[in-house]
Amino acid sequence: MSRNLRIAGAQLGPIQRGADRAETLARLIALLEAAAAEGAELVVFPELALTTFFPRWWMDAADPELAGYFETAMPNPSVQPLFDRARALQIGFYLGYAERTPQGQHFNTAITVGPDGSILGKYRKVHLPGSREYRPAQQYQQLEKRYFEYGDMGFKAFRGPKVWNAPVLGMLVCNDRRWPEAWRVLGLQGVELMLIGYNSAAYDPNGGPAEDLALRTFHSTMVVQANAYMNATWAVSVAKAGVEDGAGLIGGSCIVDPNGKVVAQATTLGDELILADADLALCQQGKQKMFNFAAHRRPQWYKPIVEQVGAVAPD
Amino acid sequence: MSRNLRIAGAQLGPIQRGADRAETLARLIALLEAAAAEGAELVVFPELALTTFFPRWWMDAADPELAGYFETAMPNPSVQPLFDRARALQIGFYLGYAERTPQGQHFNTAITVGPDGSILGKYRKVHLPGSREYRPAQQYQQLEKRYFEYGDMGFKAFRGPKVWNAPVLGMLVCNDRRWPEAWRVLGLQGVELMLIGYNSAAYDPNGGPAEDLALRTFHSTMVVQANAYMNATWAVSVAKAGVEDGAGLIGGSCIVDPNGKVVAQATTLGDELILADADLALCQQGKQKMFNFAAHRRPQWYKPIVEQVGAVAPD
Repeated sequence: MSRNLRIAGAQLGPIQRGADRAETLARLIALLEAAAAEGAELVVFPELALTTFFPRWWMDAADPELAGYFETAMPNPSVQPLFDRARALQIGFYLGYAERTPQGQHFNTAITVGPDGSILGKYRKVHLPGSREYRPAQQYQQLEKRYFEYGDMGFKAFRGPKVWNAPVLGMLVCNDRRWPEAWRVLGLQGVELMLIGYNSAAYDPNGGPAEDLALRTFHSTMVVQANAYMNATWAVSVAKAGVEDGAGLIGGSCIVDPNGKVVAQATTLGDELILADADLALCQQGKQKMFNFAAHRRPQWYKPIVEQVGAVAPD
Repeated sequence: MSRNLRIAGAQLGPIQRGADRAETLARLIALLEAAAAEGAELVVFPELALTTFFPRWWMDAADPELAGYFETAMPNPSVQPLFDRARALQIGFYLGYAERTPQGQHFNTAITVGPDGSILGKYRKVHLPGSREYRPAQQYQQLEKRYFEYGDMGFKAFRGPKVWNAPVLGMLVCNDRRWPEAWRVLGLQGVELMLIGYNSAAYDPNGGPAEDLALRTFHSTMVVQANAYMNATWAVSVAKAGVEDGAGLIGGSCIVDPNGKVVAQATTLGDELILADADLALCQQGKQKMFNFAAHRRPQWYKPIVEQVGAVAPD
C-alpha cells in the first residue's frame, strides 16, 4: 500500500554578507509558496539558510557582526513571517540556522516544522569540518570548529504527522552527509526520509587545487545516493549555491529514492525548487530484504567504529 | 610523490554446475597471463571463483556434490597451477573460494597472494546474505547462511610488499561491499586498496520483481564508489557474471579511485580483464582533509552501530 508524501527542496542562491534579513526571508517565502502551489507538503531549505556562510570569515569573538548571524530563539520576529505563511499554507519545512542558546552555546542547527507550525524535531550538526585556527595561506577560511560547538543531541529520528503518512524522519546538516555512521544511526531507527541542508565550497576548503565544482558536486550527490540506498530511505539534500561573498558554493540539490536513484536535481546555482512524490512504502524492499538489519548485521565486528577515532595503519 | 600499483580485475563469465576444474583453472590462468602481459602487478578474481555459485541449490549436508565445492587446503593440487604461474610471472592475486577447515568449519573465503606466492592475507565473509531454509516459492535459492558459517576473522587490513609500494590492503567478499561498517573498520586501518569479489544475482534473490540486472548493477557500482570515497581508498570489485546454471548474475566489475570515480568497468558478462594504474598517493587528499578521521569523527554518537542489531523505529 502506497504512503505518499510530496516533498520539495528549495535551493537558495547566495545570500551575500550584509544582506537584508527581510529580503532573504522574502526569498524563502517565495520558494515556500511555489512549493505549496505545486502541492508539496514538506520543503527543505539549506543549512544556514538565513545568512551568508559566515564561517568563511575570521571574526573576533566579540565582533557584533558575528553575534548578528545567530538566532537566539526560533522562531523569532525576523523569521516569524515564514512560520506564519507556512502554517497558513499547511506546509512543513526544514530550516538550517545558527543557534545561540540562552546559556551562550553556539550550534549549527536545523529544525523540522510540521504543517501546524509545531517544531517536530531539532538537530545540531555533529560533524563540524574546517579548523579553529586562521589559515593564512587560504583566501577563504572554514572556521566552523571555531564558531560552533559540536552537536550534543546525537542522531535522533522522529515521526512525522499522520497527514504526511507518519514517516520516520531524520535530519543531518551538510558535512554529516559524508559520514555513513550518521546515516546508520538513523537507519537503525528505521528512517524513511532524510532531510539535509548544506553549504559546500566549489573548491577544496582545506586548500589545494585537487577539487573543483564538478568533483565536489559529484561527491555530494554520490554520498546521498549510496547512503540512502544502504539505509533504504528517501533523502532530500539541498544547497545554498552560487558565488557568495566572492566564494563559490556548489549546487546539485537532489531528491533520492531508496534505491539511490536521483529522481530530481537542481540545474542552476540560484533559487530553485525541486519536487518529487515520495512513496514511503518503497523503503520496505530494502528494509525487509538486502538491508534487513536484524537478519544481516554483525556488530561484534564493528567495534573499532566506536572504540577509536583516528586511523591506525598496520606495520 | 606517486606510489603506483598497476591493478587488474579478472571478471569471470559463468562457471556451470558440473564444470571441469582444470577447464575453470585454465580460464583463470588465461586472465592472469593477460593481466601480466599488460603489466599488472595484482589481479582480483571473483568470489567463489573456482565453482558455480552453488548456494543457489538446495543440497543435503551429506551430499557429496556439496562437499566437492569446498577446498580443504589452499593451495591444493587442483589450484596449484594458478599459484605456480602467478609466481613465475611475479604477479599477485585475490581469489575467492569455499573453504572447509580441518575442523569441519565452512567459510566463504578470500585470500590475497603476493608476487612471491606467499599468502599475504585471508578473509572470511562476515555479511552472509540469504536464508538457512528452503524457500519453496523461489526458482533459485540463496542458501549462504546454510552452507557457510559467519566469518570469524573480522576486517583486518594488511600491508602489501614493497615492490607494490607497500599499500594498506583490505578484502571483502560480495555482500560485504554494501555494508559501510565493513569499509569503515578497514578505513580505520588506513586502507588504500580494497579487493572485492562478488556473485550477485541479476534479479531480487529474495523474491519479487522489484530488482533487475540494470538496477542491481547500479547498486553494486554505487556502493563501491561511495564507500571508496568515504574512506579515501582505491577499490577493485570483480564479478562472476552471466547466466550460470540458468540464473543471471550481474557483471559491472569496476576499478574505483579515492574520489569514487569509476576509472575502468567491464562491458560484458563474460571473462574480461579491466586495468588501471592506481596511484596510492591519491588517497592522501581524502585521508588528510575531508576524511581526516582523527580531526572529524565523533564516535560518542555512533554507539547504536555496535549496541543494537535490528532497526527500532520511534513511536
